[in-house]
Amino acid sequence: MITSTANAQVKELVRLMKKNRAREEAGVFVAEGPRMVGELVSDGRMKGRVERICLSESYVQKHREEADSLGGICRTEVFADNVFAHISDTKTPQGILAVVKRLEYGMDDILGKKPGKQVGEQPEHAHVLVLDNLQDPGNLGTVFRTAEAAGATGIVLSRDCVDVYNPKVTRSTMGAVFRVPFLYVDDLVGTIGELKQSGLRVYAAHLEGKNAYDREDYKSACAFLIGNEGNGLRDEVAACADCRIRIPMYGKAESLNAAVAAAVLMFEVSRQRRL
Amino acid sequence: MITSTANAQVKELVRLMKKNRAREEAGVFVAEGPRMVGELVSDGRMKGRVERICLSESYVQKHREEADSLGGICRTEVFADNVFAHISDTKTPQGILAVVKRLEYGMDDILGKKPGKQVGEQPEHAHVLVLDNLQDPGNLGTVFRTAEAAGATGIVLSRDCVDVYNPKVTRSTMGAVFRVPFLYVDDLVGTIGELKQSGLRVYAAHLEGKNAYDREDYKSACAFLIGNEGNGLRDEVAACADCRIRIPMYGKAESLNAAVAAAVLMFEVSRQRRL
Repeated sequence: MITSTANAQVKELVRLMKKNRAREEAGVFVAEGPRMVGELVSDGRMKGRVERICLSESYVQKHREEADSLGGICRTEVFADNVFAHISDTKTPQGILAVVKRLEYGMDDILGKKPGKQVGEQPEHAHVLVLDNLQDPGNLGTVFRTAEAAGATGIVLSRDCVDVYNPKVTRSTMGAVFRVPFLYVDDLVGTIGELKQSGLRVYAAHLEGKNAYDREDYKSACAFLIGNEGNGLRDEVAACADCRIRIPMYGKAESLNAAVAAAVLMFEVSRQRRL
Repeated sequence: MITSTANAQVKELVRLMKKNRAREEAGVFVAEGPRMVGELVSDGRMKGRVERICLSESYVQKHREEADSLGGICRTEVFADNVFAHISDTKTPQGILAVVKRLEYGMDDILGKKPGKQVGEQPEHAHVLVLDNLQDPGNLGTVFRTAEAAGATGIVLSRDCVDVYNPKVTRSTMGAVFRVPFLYVDDLVGTIGELKQSGLRVYAAHLEGKNAYDREDYKSACAFLIGNEGNGLRDEVAACADCRIRIPMYGKAESLNAAVAAAVLMFEVSRQRRL
């Protein structure tokens, strides 16, 4: 058992928790809490990617059998409770976290094309969300969670969006980060061009949109551009869209929360495709 | 200018910021930030309810004219920057907040009936959201903001929901708390009975709902029951509904964020009523 916060492993874990760059260099992310770790080890594709599981002393005492079985999956390490709390990103640590090798996705994943599958087994049409400079961790987590539920095939993010592997975001995706393909890109405008070349119709959610969002047909492949919480879409990004749409609003409401706007659009796609 | 955190007024303001009970006893709430205060003083109905505006020394220096004009509306008080920061609920205080007398709403307001207006001027049909034990401040703020935009007529909350006058919630409503009628009730089951007697069809958003939400007709008066973030609706509350509906979900998603679920339902009402 590791009992000192000066331990080299503890220092490395704290860096992985706090620094986007450290996580990126190591090609890993950290998933904290029994629910998240449970989802990882029960997911055929993710299970082999779990590099290490860290447990607090009292977690092991309470869940002896589980701790033993986790030891069969990967390397496990036990920490004194106060040391675990020092590593943890949460106020009331639950005593379990995993260091996991990242999944790497490509454009085919985003478009819902699954290698090795026959035509007809694939999702009929791409349904992509494109996020331009989204900054709020809670919003990004909610967007992932909602995207999975609404059947989106993938998410494209501008490099300056908040990091989905920020432990707060990872947690708030409720596991969707393990299942929804996503891609951070340096050249968002170029990537939107690729989406269009792949046959997607690109819609910008825009306060000045001419058409109400629910007057468009989303049964074919489509993508939605969602902008920053305070400033909306950058002009050069909005300019890439085939069509600007607006969500009609009553009262004095000036805009919607970005995650809510994304939810309304994605569930409209889901509604139309289920008809 | 008030320069000491030991000042009696400062102590009272801190209590109003922190204690639900203190706000309730005084019949007030606190709105912080230039945007919120701006919305208050430009709103005919709210303007007369602003009891006091508190400014930081540097805010007054930067916005001399505005500070003078606010003095014409109500009592203003200037605080040294460090004292203002002590009162403020935010990490980076913007130097302006208002103490405001609460609005009191009744059931007619929730149903969208405006006194003194002729039939035909009123919103055609009630569109009510009923929140059962919602706990997350960010969720409640988002629900208010979304409800205004979607044209909901009012919100009913069980007494154990988070306080909308919690400064974090008030702020995250983006002003909707000043405009969307709402009512905290001790007897939620009884109030749902009243809604039904008023002719509303009551829908429970429920994971075990038989009908997809988008197969129902919301053009007539309707209400939606939304449950707690972790536990959903209490059984006795869900049992009040005329109909249980579910939001169809793909992937391994088990549920939606409560504010997202509310948004999807309210914008479906808006969509149907605009057709």
